[in-house]
Order: sequence, then C-alpha cells, then structure tokens
Amino acid sequence: MTKTNPGRFFEDYAVGDVITHAVPRTIKMGERALYHALYPARHALHSSDQFAQSCGLPFSPLDDLVTFHTVFGKTVPDVSLNAVANLGYAEGRWITPLWPGDTITATSEVIGVKQNSNGKSGVVWVHTTGRNQHGEVLMSYVRWVMVRKRSDSTAPEPVIPVLSTVVAPADLVIPHGLDFTSYDFALAGEPHRLGDYSVGEIIDHVDGVTIEEAEHMLATRLWQNTAKVHFDATNRTDGKRLIYGGHIISLARALSFNGLANAQMIVALNGGAHANPCFAGDTVRAWSEVLDTAETQAPGVGAVRLRLVATKGGAGVLRGEDGKYHPDVLLDLDYWALMPV
Amino acid sequence: MTKTNPGRFFEDYAVGDVITHAVPRTIKMGERALYHALYPARHALHSSDQFAQSCGLPFSPLDDLVTFHTVFGKTVPDVSLNAVANLGYAEGRWITPLWPGDTITATSEVIGVKQNSNGKSGVVWVHTTGRNQHGEVLMSYVRWVMVRKRSDSTAPEPVIPVLSTVVAPADLVIPHGLDFTSYDFALAGEPHRLGDYSVGEIIDHVDGVTIEEAEHMLATRLWQNTAKVHFDATNRTDGKRLIYGGHIISLARALSFNGLANAQMIVALNGGAHANPCFAGDTVRAWSEVLDTAETQAPGVGAVRLRLVATKGGAGVLRGEDGKYHPDVLLDLDYWALMPV
Amino acid sequence: MTKTNPGRFFEDYAVGDVITHAVPRTIKMGERALYHALYPARHALHSSDQFAQSCGLPFSPLDDLVTFHTVFGKTVPDVSLNAVANLGYAEGRWITPLWPGDTITATSEVIGVKQNSNGKSGVVWVHTTGRNQHGEVLMSYVRWVMVRKRSDSTAPEPVIPVLSTVVAPADLVIPHGLDFTSYDFALAGEPHRLGDYSVGEIIDHVDGVTIEEAEHMLATRLWQNTAKVHFDATNRTDGKRLIYGGHIISLARALSFNGLANAQMIVALNGGAHANPCFAGDTVRAWSEVLDTAETQAPGVGAVRLRLVATKGGAGVLRGEDGKYHPDVLLDLDYWALMPV
Repeated sequence: MTKTNPGRFFEDYAVGDVITHAVPRTIKMGERALYHALYPARHALHSSDQFAQSCGLPFSPLDDLVTFHTVFGKTVPDVSLNAVANLGYAEGRWITPLWPGDTITATSEVIGVKQNSNGKSGVVWVHTTGRNQHGEVLMSYVRWVMVRKRSDSTAPEPVIPVLSTVVAPADLVIPHGLDFTSYDFALAGEPHRLGDYSVGEIIDHVDGVTIEEAEHMLATRLWQNTAKVHFDATNRTDGKRLIYGGHIISLARALSFNGLANAQMIVALNGGAHANPCFAGDTVRAWSEVLDTAETQAPGVGAVRLRLVATKGGAGVLRGEDGKYHPDVLLDLDYWALMPV
Repeated sequence: MTKTNPGRFFEDYAVGDVITHAVPRTIKMGERALYHALYPARHALHSSDQFAQSCGLPFSPLDDLVTFHTVFGKTVPDVSLNAVANLGYAEGRWITPLWPGDTITATSEVIGVKQNSNGKSGVVWVHTTGRNQHGEVLMSYVRWVMVRKRSDSTAPEPVIPVLSTVVAPADLVIPHGLDFTSYDFALAGEPHRLGDYSVGEIIDHVDGVTIEEAEHMLATRLWQNTAKVHFDATNRTDGKRLIYGGHIISLARALSFNGLANAQMIVALNGGAHANPCFAGDTVRAWSEVLDTAETQAPGVGAVRLRLVATKGGAGVLRGEDGKYHPDVLLDLDYWALMPV
Repeated sequence: MTKTNPGRFFEDYAVGDVITHAVPRTIKMGERALYHALYPARHALHSSDQFAQSCGLPFSPLDDLVTFHTVFGKTVPDVSLNAVANLGYAEGRWITPLWPGDTITATSEVIGVKQNSNGKSGVVWVHTTGRNQHGEVLMSYVRWVMVRKRSDSTAPEPVIPVLSTVVAPADLVIPHGLDFTSYDFALAGEPHRLGDYSVGEIIDHVDGVTIEEAEHMLATRLWQNTAKVHFDATNRTDGKRLIYGGHIISLARALSFNGLANAQMIVALNGGAHANPCFAGDTVRAWSEVLDTAETQAPGVGAVRLRLVATKGGAGVLRGEDGKYHPDVLLDLDYWALMPV
C-alpha cells in the first residue's frame, strides 16, 4: 500500500495500452537561458528572435532537443523506473516547434513487447508523443527499453514492431513559414551551405567539455527526469552518478556548431545508441559524418542526415575490430537537420 | 566609519522596531526555470499554466518556497549576519500566491528579545512579512535567532512572544479561485486524495540527491541570501561550506512529490528545525508523516498537515533515545499543504 | 578544407577591417535570473522593476555587465581563438541599457596592429560595438590582444591607436530618464551617497566566494563564449580550466555591493587588467578604491570612478615592490558608475 511510485514492470505493459504521463510543463525563456548556460549552444535560429524572423518564423523557437528532453523526462516514471537498459530510438519526428509559453504533455502507446529468454526481463517498445497546449503534436518517437519482470508470470505473445531505419525525406515536417532564401551566413557563423557537404564527409568539431556533476544534474532535473541513477551517488557501488544520455546528446549537438553552424533545426531522429556510460570528469568531444542530403519543399531549405558521435577520444573512431563500439564512444546518433541549400 | 554592513548585534533590536529590508526583487519565469533545475520539483500546479487554470487559478504561481526563500534572503543582512544559530520558525502563512512579474519586498518587526544568561548573546524574535508590488502580503512568519552582543551592555527587559505551535485550519488562506473539483489526478502524477492518507502514516519518499557545492550556492545566491558561511570555504576551519537550511527544505519538499504529488500548495509553516548541518557530498533523502487533515471552504480542497524530514539515513528515524535529533536528520519541518479531498 | 573555424591569425587583421561577429542573441529574464544565481548581485536598479521605475526607467535593465559579456563572447571566435594574451581594455562606454527582449549583435573594427619583435606574434587592437535590434549602440570598447602569426610573413606597418586612459565625465552617457532625486536608500541597501565617498578611500567588500568549476562554466557558456581553455580540462598540462576573466569581473562587481550598494549603473570601462589567472577552488574577495567623482546632467545623478580589485588576499594590496601585481591579485578594473549625489 505504498504511496510512492513502484514503476511498471514488464508484465504491466500490453500492446495497445496508452499511458498518460504526469505533470504537464510550461516552458518559457528561463528554460532557454538555462539551455544556453548548460550547453555551448549557438545555432542562430534558436538564439535570436530577429534571426528566426529573417527565416520566416514568428520568433525564436526553443532548441529542438528541449522538446525531446521534456517529453522523455515525462516518460521516465512510467517507462524507465525498472528499466535495465535503454535500447534504442527510431522514427523520431519533430512536427511543431516549441515556442516560449507552450505547455508540454506526453503520452506513450505500447507498440511491442517481447520477453527475454531468461524469463527475468523483456523488451518493451513505446511510441511516445509530446503535445502542446493546443493538442498539436510537438514530436513523436519510438523508444525501446529492457524492463525487469515482477514475477515468473507467463510470457505474453511477442509483438515486435517493424521500424524504419531512417525517416524518409518526404516525411520530414518543415516548420510552417521556414524560408532560408535570405539566410545570413555571416550572422549564423559559417559560410557552408548544404552543397558544400559531401556524403561520407567527417567533421571533427574540435572542442571539448569536461563534465561536472552539478551541470548534468541541473540539466536532467530541468527536464523533470527523476531517474535515481543520475542524482544519487549511493545508488551504485562505485559511488558514481550515471549521466543522463540526453545530456550527452545536447552537449554533442551544441559542440557540432563548430563545422555545422547551419544545421539549424533537428527534424528527425532516425536512431541512436548510448554506446558507453559517461561520468563526471570525462571530457566529451564530438564528430559528425554526413550520411545523406535531401531537398525539401520549403524555399531555400535542404536537409542533411548526420551521424553525430560523442566521444572521449578522437574523431572518426566508432567501432573496434570486433564490431563493438570503441570504449571511448559515448553516443552514436542519426538525425536529420535543416540547412540552407 | 566602514561603508560595509557590520550587521545588527543583540543590542540593536528593540521590541516594536520595524526593519525595512533592502533590495526589492522582481521574480519571473527565469527563477521558476532555475527552481526546476535546482530541485526535483514536479508539483503540477507549479509546473503548468494549463493545470493551474484547471484548478481555478489564472496561471501557474511560483513554487511557494520561492516566496519564502526570497523574503528570508532579504532579512539576512539585517537579522542573520551576527546570528549564532537559527532557532525556529512559527506561524508562517502564505497569503497571496507569487505570480511571475511580482516584485517582493520584506519588512520585519521585532516582537521579542531575551538576553542569554552568559551575557554574550541573546535571542531575537522577528515577525517577517513579504509583500508584492501592490502592497499585498505574500507571506509572513515568525523566526527567532540567537545573536551576538556587541558589548557588555545591560540586558533589556525580556519579552518572549507567545507563539502558536500550529496554524489553525480556520486560519489557512486558500488562494482566490482555487477549486479542486475537476482535479486531474493522472496529470498530477498520483491517484491519492486527502481521504487516502491517515494521521500517523509515514511516507518514505525513496529517492535521494547527492549535494554539490555549485548547486547549493546557485540556489542560495538566487534568493540574494548573502550569508558568508554558504559561499566562502575559508570561513570555517574545516574548509566546508555550510548549506543554507532553506536549500534542504526545498530539496526535501521536491523529493516528497513521490508519495505526496497532490500536496499541491504550501499554505502554512507551523514550525521547523534545522536539526543538523548539511555539506556537499551528503546524499539527502526525505520522509513525511501525516500529522493532521482538515477541511477548507474552497471547493474540493482539503488541507493536510505534514511533518517533512530530510535525512541522510532511513525513513521514520527522527530522534535518538536521548530525545535529540538523530545525527542523520537534517530537517524537521511542520507545514500545511492543500490537497484534493 | 576544414569546416571548423581555425580562428584568425595576426596576418588576418588589417587596420580598417570590420568584422561581423556571429550569432545574434536575444536576452530575456532567464538570463537575469541566471545572473543572480551565478553572482551575488544585489544592486536594486537591476533587481526590481519598481525600484527602476522610481529612478525614472521604464523597468529594470539587465546588469550592465550582461551586455559586456554577451558582446565579448561574440568576439571570441574572431578575436581570441589564436590569442596568447588579453592585454587590455580602454574607452568602454555603455550607451543604451539592455532591456529584456533585446537582441544583441556585435561588430569589431581593427584599429591597430603591431608585430612583436620575435616575429611570431603581434598585438591587435579592435574597437568592438554591441548593438540592439534597433541598431542602437548598447556599448563599445577597445580591446587589445596578442595573437599568434600563421607564418613568417612580413610585418605590417605598425599602427598603434592613441587611447584615453579614462573616459571623461562629459562623455559618460546617462540612461534616458534616469533621475535619482527620489532615490530610496533604505530599499537600495545603504545610506551612502556620492558625497560620502572621498577620493583615495579604500573599501574592503569583506565577503568571499569560493569558485566552482560548474559555476564559471555555466556563466561563460551563458555568454556563448566558447574559448576552449574555460571548458576543457585536457587543454592544459596541469588539468586546470582557466576561468574567464569576465567571470571575475562580475563576481567582484557583485561583491562590491557591500559598501557600494548605490553605485548603481556602470557607464564606462576606463581600463582593466586580468592580473593573474584564477582557478576553481580559489576564494575571491574584492576591494575598491575611489579614484574620482563627477557631476552629471541628470537630476540627482553623480558619477564615481572606482578601481575594483579582485583578489585571493587582503584589501588594499595591489602591487609588490617590483611594481608587478601581487600574485593574489586577479583583477584591476577602472570604471565609472552612477550614484545618487
């Protein structure tokens, strides 16, 4: 009869269930200021109302990852509490920009379950949707996690969703009004347009940031993500706090400004792996690989598909000879961003 | 002829004096964002404008403790600078919610003085009132501190105020318009209503947060609380910075979401003790005891009186056999909050 | 053919060049809240809309150093990336207050170059101007840095600008409408007016703050200052992160409230030296020397010229017998502020 949240176990997920995640959250300019303090974020569209207006938007939207983190944070009490591992992301799409003053709510539909052969855990796939106060979809994505079982209950019929490995360019949603025909490259910080990037090109983002406990905790709390491992040094026997994987995503994305200053808005998350854990004291660097480019219907706006790698080591190194991620690699993210053609 | 503030000594307080505290402060959404980054605060009424509107409020007020910390911070240069100990709180009442854009000012009336038998210090009672820019009372509370004497001056006539040990339910002020009849428990995060809690019930809030120097200093500075001991590592011989007691109050209150998600607004502070000092590196947990419940005049709104304990140890442990606080206990707070019936 | 910014070398600066710095930045109340969390800033004009209104302003402007830090941060990728040393500031003037919602852009004109005799580096002088979204000048200042050469190229014709050692009182720009005739000294925190200060007077600001890595990084990032040395612990062989000199300026200025609470607005930066590097763990104190006072045309408004010294040691100590800065001294800043007469 405990009043506290015990979290859901594998048995508590049935395909078709829709979970309403708690605590709607109003996001304003305070969150943007903190985002800029926590990450070396400099993309002009998210920094200046006037720059955003010169690109056809009413004013500067929050960084796209603010939507992701806030929605993700809401799912933690319902999805992550008894999760053993965060296995993957797919089919993430940003549909509507997040404007200051918007209130975010989130729901998740269970779209797959598969018990592990050990009978002690299983994989759960959820399709999570974040909405604003008008009911408009801000973003949605599929995530799958390994979750502990509560008991020796019978395995459910396995349902494994078929997921795209990449969001098709035709399915990318371009923010209403976006127009890069008058794009100011000098104010944006770099002269490189979509045509200047080649598929296969590797960009070393050069800069590094050494991680502090206080900073990753401030960030993770800001998204109301309450997972114990990020905050409680007594939770692991080595006394370390595990850093929220999304902190590394935002850090790497911000570092990627240096070489990808014009990859202005994230519109799709094709996939992602948190390759190795990260701890305070680690110095995080980032590199990108250009995976694809595409046209869009919006004037002057192209799309670039990027692999973004966060690492404690050098650029270009991803996997060892055994095919496993190199121990220095923290994050391997596959996303689409919008860039002037 | 120093230009800096030497602080008040025991001799500088006379019953009936009213002290105007310096530096009015405008609070907006930036402070709310920081509050959410500094504490795992998730109470829905303070997180979402839409949720607050569904409860009859115009939009989401700042967390009630923001008012307390800001008012308290203003009193520090006048009350705490030569204080040896913060002895207690009583009769704290929140009268008007703090809305973004409000400017807080504070005054304190001296309501009691009593010199200690050692002749070197004395106890001072002040009744502190915080007001908004319209002159409306935001909150008021009584606090008493032990203050050093400047000299061997004669002891003043002792005046010891008679203080209530608890704010009577009839004296609780319910924010104008508050209505919990359409309260959305799913969005709020827990299904428990007032009737689900029993007097004497203990709630272990489970989660822990390990404290960082940067975080408690950011928080304490945010309230313009300038007490040296919180910021200057050379101030104590052990090189430790003493953590502002209010930081522990906010941390424990935020942790109490897990089990008390529907204890939405703090309306009274009946009493409180900072049982032991807290330092960076400590992992803080919290537990609550239900002390009482009461009805209010507002539709669907009840009140719950809670003991909130912050501790470095386990739930339920408060005092040793000697009647003294257990060394693990950091905070013992007694307050009223509003909860759907 | 790297996509990342290699920075400018000495050869890349020619007198008369105007550099447009990247990434305009909209500043709102979130940045103010962070400023108050990062520094013990308490000057009433920057804390309260109502106090600012009582001084003739429409509402409370951002702290003047927010303008400086944001403008300075924008120049880093173009001026500091290959800089060996930040040599000095001169002729800094604040022209228009920074209001919440303003967007800052910055440009720098190269006004001097002089190759060093070693042929490996040179000094570059830039006149930097920050503007708001209306094109109005927020502030401007001259800064000179020592920059590495890329190659053995021929030295350019040296051009050494003639710089004033102090901004003349007649050149100080008083914010439109500023009026201190109804100034509330009690709310501002101290009774001292301009006439109470004597030229040559030393004020020990008493309080100290021990610096944390997380705090100086949050602050420096907030201004989108991306200089590697502040963030990357692997950048120096001793594993230390060098603290942004501007962090020390803001910290010392905030500490100077205690004794200079009425030095409300900074209107000129006459000069400044970052005397010694500062690292996390250092406890920073501050003292001021009154260098001059002046009248202004605005009602009730005077100006005070102050030397602001940040130090790890005691008040009043500036240089050793050798004329060099004492090793404890971190900052020696010369500025004009406005104060009620």
